[in-house]
Amino acid sequence: MNKPALHLNLVVKDIADEMRRRPDRGEVASYIPELARVDPKHFGIAVFDDEGNLACGGDCDMPFSIQSVSKVFTLTLALGRYGDRLWQRVGREPSGSAFNSIVQLEYERGVPRNPFINAGAIAITDMILSGHQPREALGEILRFMRFLAGDATITIDEAVAASEQRTGYRNIALANYMKSFGVLDNAVDLTLGVYFHQCAIAMSCKQLAMAGRFLAHNGRNPATGMSVVNPERARRINAVMMTCGHYDGSGEFAYRVGLPGKSGVGGGILAVAPGKASIAVWAPGLDAAGNSHLGRVALEALTKRLGWSIFGA
Amino acid sequence: MNKPALHLNLVVKDIADEMRRRPDRGEVASYIPELARVDPKHFGIAVFDDEGNLACGGDCDMPFSIQSVSKVFTLTLALGRYGDRLWQRVGREPSGSAFNSIVQLEYERGVPRNPFINAGAIAITDMILSGHQPREALGEILRFMRFLAGDATITIDEAVAASEQRTGYRNIALANYMKSFGVLDNAVDLTLGVYFHQCAIAMSCKQLAMAGRFLAHNGRNPATGMSVVNPERARRINAVMMTCGHYDGSGEFAYRVGLPGKSGVGGGILAVAPGKASIAVWAPGLDAAGNSHLGRVALEALTKRLGWSIFGA
Amino acid sequence: MNKPALHLNLVVKDIADEMRRRPDRGEVASYIPELARVDPKHFGIAVFDDEGNLACGGDCDMPFSIQSVSKVFTLTLALGRYGDRLWQRVGREPSGSAFNSIVQLEYERGVPRNPFINAGAIAITDMILSGHQPREALGEILRFMRFLAGDATITIDEAVAASEQRTGYRNIALANYMKSFGVLDNAVDLTLGVYFHQCAIAMSCKQLAMAGRFLAHNGRNPATGMSVVNPERARRINAVMMTCGHYDGSGEFAYRVGLPGKSGVGGGILAVAPGKASIAVWAPGLDAAGNSHLGRVALEALTKRLGWSIFGA
Amino acid sequence: MNKPALHLNLVVKDIADEMRRRPDRGEVASYIPELARVDPKHFGIAVFDDEGNLACGGDCDMPFSIQSVSKVFTLTLALGRYGDRLWQRVGREPSGSAFNSIVQLEYERGVPRNPFINAGAIAITDMILSGHQPREALGEILRFMRFLAGDATITIDEAVAASEQRTGYRNIALANYMKSFGVLDNAVDLTLGVYFHQCAIAMSCKQLAMAGRFLAHNGRNPATGMSVVNPERARRINAVMMTCGHYDGSGEFAYRVGLPGKSGVGGGILAVAPGKASIAVWAPGLDAAGNSHLGRVALEALTKRLGWSIFGA
Repeated sequence: MNKPALHLNLVVKDIADEMRRRPDRGEVASYIPELARVDPKHFGIAVFDDEGNLACGGDCDMPFSIQSVSKVFTLTLALGRYGDRLWQRVGREPSGSAFNSIVQLEYERGVPRNPFINAGAIAITDMILSGHQPREALGEILRFMRFLAGDATITIDEAVAASEQRTGYRNIALANYMKSFGVLDNAVDLTLGVYFHQCAIAMSCKQLAMAGRFLAHNGRNPATGMSVVNPERARRINAVMMTCGHYDGSGEFAYRVGLPGKSGVGGGILAVAPGKASIAVWAPGLDAAGNSHLGRVALEALTKRLGWSIFGA
Repeated sequence: MNKPALHLNLVVKDIADEMRRRPDRGEVASYIPELARVDPKHFGIAVFDDEGNLACGGDCDMPFSIQSVSKVFTLTLALGRYGDRLWQRVGREPSGSAFNSIVQLEYERGVPRNPFINAGAIAITDMILSGHQPREALGEILRFMRFLAGDATITIDEAVAASEQRTGYRNIALANYMKSFGVLDNAVDLTLGVYFHQCAIAMSCKQLAMAGRFLAHNGRNPATGMSVVNPERARRINAVMMTCGHYDGSGEFAYRVGLPGKSGVGGGILAVAPGKASIAVWAPGLDAAGNSHLGRVALEALTKRLGWSIFGA
Repeated sequence: MNKPALHLNLVVKDIADEMRRRPDRGEVASYIPELARVDPKHFGIAVFDDEGNLACGGDCDMPFSIQSVSKVFTLTLALGRYGDRLWQRVGREPSGSAFNSIVQLEYERGVPRNPFINAGAIAITDMILSGHQPREALGEILRFMRFLAGDATITIDEAVAASEQRTGYRNIALANYMKSFGVLDNAVDLTLGVYFHQCAIAMSCKQLAMAGRFLAHNGRNPATGMSVVNPERARRINAVMMTCGHYDGSGEFAYRVGLPGKSGVGGGILAVAPGKASIAVWAPGLDAAGNSHLGRVALEALTKRLGWSIFGA
Repeated sequence: MNKPALHLNLVVKDIADEMRRRPDRGEVASYIPELARVDPKHFGIAVFDDEGNLACGGDCDMPFSIQSVSKVFTLTLALGRYGDRLWQRVGREPSGSAFNSIVQLEYERGVPRNPFINAGAIAITDMILSGHQPREALGEILRFMRFLAGDATITIDEAVAASEQRTGYRNIALANYMKSFGVLDNAVDLTLGVYFHQCAIAMSCKQLAMAGRFLAHNGRNPATGMSVVNPERARRINAVMMTCGHYDGSGEFAYRVGLPGKSGVGGGILAVAPGKASIAVWAPGLDAAGNSHLGRVALEALTKRLGWSIFGA
């Protein structure tokens, strides 16, 4: 192991140790009953640097529900199919409101503000579904995740999907509301079926960090050499993650961590240090804005110690 | 001139030429009568790179009203005096609404969402004013701008200040509204008097790019060697510029330009390429979100050609 | 026929004639496809005075979809079962927004502002459904309507119910949104099934005016002598109709007509002149607030000519 | 004294006694310092019936600050000057929000929802001011009040006016906000100067009940025989009082009291029983919506015992 990699390794271990000891863990998401059962004591972290070195700590091999982190990947998929026409259906401005807010949709006639709030992600999934059966669309999303992570064992946690399907009233409301404005093309229950399943994909920090590498390296996964998107698109996805990736905590995340990132209510965060690393953290307890509390704290410590913020040289 | 500086020079000239020819110029701000008289044909650009090379084009020496670009500097000043206690008075989340919106203030009991919307900037100016006479506070702001720009000739355009003082009903409403929640400490007309004058500071692109250099270089202006803020604070100011610097066009600016930046209704934009450059552009015509239209277009071209986006390696 | 009845008859005929000739007819509701097919030329009016005289004009025997006029009767039913505990689930303030707005629900945590906007009426239907099968609940509502109208032939227009069930995305959104706050007790699709069917009850102006007589006479239908509610409750239902019965056109209706009333998007309006008469009008074209345009015009003419406004002696 | 007058007298005395004993008094308005000093134990009531009999109880001769009750009279004055053109400047729909809310103004571009919320009343005062000096406009309002009350001793409480002028930040915000949309014609401070003084008019329940008699009797004060407005206008002012007179408690007031009425934060309420009586009550403690708590309770008791609700025969 070379010297920078060694240093990275030490920092990651330190942070994992420190996080394990901290008492402030936030609240595990309760609105999806199956997620509410996850132990708030988990913490995992995995970092792939630009040379392919992997540093990890804590429960970095334990799969968790990626939930809204999936939105980065469905956005990538949909951009591949629709190109910039996608932005006619979904905006790319921060919402200034909660992840599941419906107010903005009424004032802006059903067009979601960005692809990372729930409404926007449902609209993106609806675009992926168009012309396909739900099973096919879901298969495409899952294959894409497996391809990016280089791991064919990634699956969907059906219990989580079923749990959300039973209780996801807010998302059903959002989808029907958009449908009333003609923003969705497919039957609402089909679109939501795919959406709930994509959110229920289970991945470990290692798998997630691997899947996100293309965003850190101009659209190409350096491990495989395969180009996923062109460099400009990679930059732009990162930009949307920066301004919109943490709902109404996006400003806070930019301020403290200084990297583009996307959180999920399962407690995962994917963060991207352009040119340097792809990072995944997992800590199930959430803060008031619905983002992983210790996940954010860990990323703040990491970028500070490694000088990885994109806002300073 | 060394080779990278030569290249930068060529790119900047190209862009200035291209902008001069473009017919799409946006609308000059009309709500401040004095600004409405500015010729929409102006375009200026100035770039200081990390070695102190200056590249400029168009009307880069012509002073314009910096308006809301001043908010970056008053935030810096106020952070110097109050430290992180400042954030008890002003948030740091994107607002999801217009620069002069008052709706959010009602829902969030008078606390502005961030220091770069009008309400937030007025609250910051109120903090700078506390314990001082308006003339002293304004003097402090002006001296700070002159110090940062290394240019003692910078002045306030009194006609612009008077024009806004006569017609700035929205800002008067915002300030009184905050006052009703106890968010402002000083008499509303005193705070607004300072605020309208700080917005009326007139600077050229060259002066503005020089004044912003500390943000590109970890808080230190490399020309003078003087440290303005510590590196972490510089990063954090950049982060707030990234998520909040262009009102309800902040997502768009991040997506297209990929740099932290702050716009003003005078048509100026200050953008920061951390470790690389401080950039100022000026084009008086605005887009629907109140940001300089050609200013943004020019910055998009610049970062693309020079590979300066912070979202790609 | 006695003299006042004769006069009433003449006024009603006059108004029916005038309405038939008017070119301004508003727009037939388009969001329920089956309703969009109704001919905007229809106009009907029926008035029962305190002595049981019936005056009618135009298409007063033609059944139409009563839609939201049904909300008066489900409120009456639910008050009978729950008494004033009902008001813990639904407010009684005007909403200041459209009939199908969802914004208020987000700000007030799922509790609808009043029983006459869609959200509130769905909540009331949910209360009626509790402890019953949908078929039973619907049967109860239908029997109540038949009892009040003294007419066992009243039925539900299944084509309208099916049409709304297929396309009522906004109502599905509202119901799921309330469900997410725990405001509804039953499965959303069951509650909505009953709601869409209650709205699809078809009645003529004559039947509707008869059904509303108890509200004009202290809770008792003078034709049958049967007491439906006590006098205080009748007054209070009238009060809610006055302030909330025409969505965001309630102020306008009070100002112009001066009677409590409830409109439906089928073009019907039930109006109550306390102590004097029960009135039903029908004209399918709607104004911008979703209320029958000519229905309101006709009622304004009627109350003016007969001196029936409750706001003057 | 005739028999109905005797009965009215007894009822009024009973209510005054009961109110004096009740411990639930609400909160005295604190945002105007001078009003905060009023003793919450006061209670007054005065009723003029259709024959000119006066029944009164409690502190019915003690002057209090009429505050927003003045809005009924400035609306009447402005309608006299502008006729129905007035409604191009101010709506007549309930707002669904607080008396001093600014949110609606942003969504509806500066046009207030009705003349009885603060924004609307300021717009009406601005119309009265147009073409006059503030002193003249205020003189006109005061003369109108004295004329209606038949009492030349009515004056303005300058201490209250000054108190609000110093601290009325919300109203200053509302006025400047409207001014930014061009909704006000005069200088904001002049309009507000008149507005604050009109609100500071001090009247007793007796004077107020006398002043409101024209609204109960088709626009004519039966004591003087003088016509103030035509019958239709009287009805329409009553209608606006019914739907908008108690801010976001208008539905509640209609539901409980069943009369048109207008409240003020000084604790006064003017209520109108068309054809029957003009009623003024005063109890300084307010409920959450900013309306006199015991004032509403007293009116509810009164209309119940006398059968005066306009919603029942």
